Amino acid sequence: MAKETDVTDYLIAPDPAATRLTRAVSGVDHNGEISQISVVEERPLTIFLNGQEIVTAMTIGDYPEYLALGFLRNQGMLRDNEDITGVDYDDELETVVVRTASQTTYEEKLKKKTRTSGCAVGTVFGDMMEGLEGVTLPATEVRTSWLYALAAQINRTPSLYLQAGAIHGTVLCHQDRPLVYMEDVGRHNAVDKIAGWMLRHQSVAGDKILYTTGRLTSEMVIKTAMMGIPVLASRSGFTAWGVEIARQVGLTLIGRMRGQRFVCLAGDDRLIRDVDPGTVVVEDGKHRRKSGGKNT
Amino acid sequence: MAKETDVTDYLIAPDPAATRLTRAVSGVDHNGEISQISVVEERPLTIFLNGQEIVTAMTIGDYPEYLALGFLRNQGMLRDNEDITGVDYDDELETVVVRTASQTTYEEKLKKKTRTSGCAVGTVFGDMMEGLEGVTLPATEVRTSWLYALAAQINRTPSLYLQAGAIHGTVLCHQDRPLVYMEDVGRHNAVDKIAGWMLRHQSVAGDKILYTTGRLTSEMVIKTAMMGIPVLASRSGFTAWGVEIARQVGLTLIGRMRGQRFVCLAGDDRLIRDVDPGTVVVEDGKHRRKSGGKNT
Repeated sequence: MAKETDVTDYLIAPDPAATRLTRAVSGVDHNGEISQISVVEERPLTIFLNGQEIVTAMTIGDYPEYLALGFLRNQGMLRDNEDITGVDYDDELETVVVRTASQTTYEEKLKKKTRTSGCAVGTVFGDMMEGLEGVTLPATEVRTSWLYALAAQINRTPSLYLQAGAIHGTVLCHQDRPLVYMEDVGRHNAVDKIAGWMLRHQSVAGDKILYTTGRLTSEMVIKTAMMGIPVLASRSGFTAWGVEIARQVGLTLIGRMRGQRFVCLAGDDRLIRDVDPGTVVVEDGKHRRKSGGKNT
Repeated sequence: MAKETDVTDYLIAPDPAATRLTRAVSGVDHNGEISQISVVEERPLTIFLNGQEIVTAMTIGDYPEYLALGFLRNQGMLRDNEDITGVDYDDELETVVVRTASQTTYEEKLKKKTRTSGCAVGTVFGDMMEGLEGVTLPATEVRTSWLYALAAQINRTPSLYLQAGAIHGTVLCHQDRPLVYMEDVGRHNAVDKIAGWMLRHQSVAGDKILYTTGRLTSEMVIKTAMMGIPVLASRSGFTAWGVEIARQVGLTLIGRMRGQRFVCLAGDDRLIRDVDPGTVVVEDGKHRRKSGGKNT
């Protein structure tokens, strides 16, 4: 049996032992017997930008500050060089307030917008696409041996997924090393927490690989590009628009990574095939994500 | 090999042959060979309530009218007896406008709210919880034989999932018969399309079962309860808050349905165990959802 990944190699690893993130719940199984299972928590977190209520996210509840920062950054509501003066989390009120030295462009837009139609949150998506116009992703090489090594390590990392399920994971990686592994009930939250961590620690993006358990939708591709990461890999499948945007912004998009197999639908010029897929040892059953299927 | 389900038994079945819903995309596989795969489409759809822009949903694009109606209904933005005067879809503008005879309570609230804090979409979630206060779900019985029969038929129904993957399905069922099977890139959209269909056709909810491929999160449970459906079943897992809300509103919540197995974490008093799980024939490999795992 393959052994578990040593989590001390991570900068942030999942914390399946954290009592605040899972709960034992009793029910009955198919045989009518009492069954106690571990289920993940899910909490509302309302994100404010200065005085402006932006969104209520449903989250597992760890790293609320990273989630708020990353969400606002990925929505294009914080500029690259935004002077962030505070990130205040209130556990009781379930709120995070991100404060900036000056009014953000988003607040300016919103003020103009609300005068006419009442609310501008529906236009956020348009703003995200606009935010991509200036994005250029570096021609960083990606060795296929790294991809296999990453998948093997990530799948063997003790996680809330392995303990309780019903959760998505996203991992920031450098070459063959997973660095920051975030999990969340919302797969977008997991990515946003990574973005918040990167913003806080001024992490270089151009040499990184983002690995996700979720599908490669337009929103995942846009977020990855907004973060400046040139490579997005997943065991799950694609949407057509996700592929289209990846091609537009020059992002390498790899999906359906299972065992020795994967498909690259955008930016395959970054791939260096330094290993024969036939020689790759496939992960063992115990740690294989059963959910490695098409609709995750 | 088990044969495919006869889709003429459905009122609405998936349409994997619809050219507008999938696209053939070329890429390279793990061996460096050109690979052409079918991927699902994903389009923005902006939903308006009268003159008010509400949200831009990312959707596969079928049944936009049902999606808009169901979304607004499930968000509590349309009253039970709301007089809906029009549902206008514009393919080019990618918009749906739902019109009501009089101003909705949501528009009134929003008007008040925008005067103070600029935007009220963040409070939608609170409104959904409020909307649950009056909900009571009938004590409809659920035979376990129906659950097995439904899972078997649904898994063998030709679908976009089986053809292209990266998509979620939700099915409105009556006893052992699946009636309306909606698929979408967003699993909440699939549920909302069902809700829109029910609203349009004045479908009775109290004797129905809702089956989803997605996780049993708070939002899925709230939507199901808002629709008045007393039973929600899934092959995926639970979140703690989803279970809590189901118990509060008296909804039967069944998860991790795979083969002969399932777990019921709320409302098991509705279950009639009329079949020995040991005698249930398990679905064959070809039609088994590979993604029947924990994080879908």
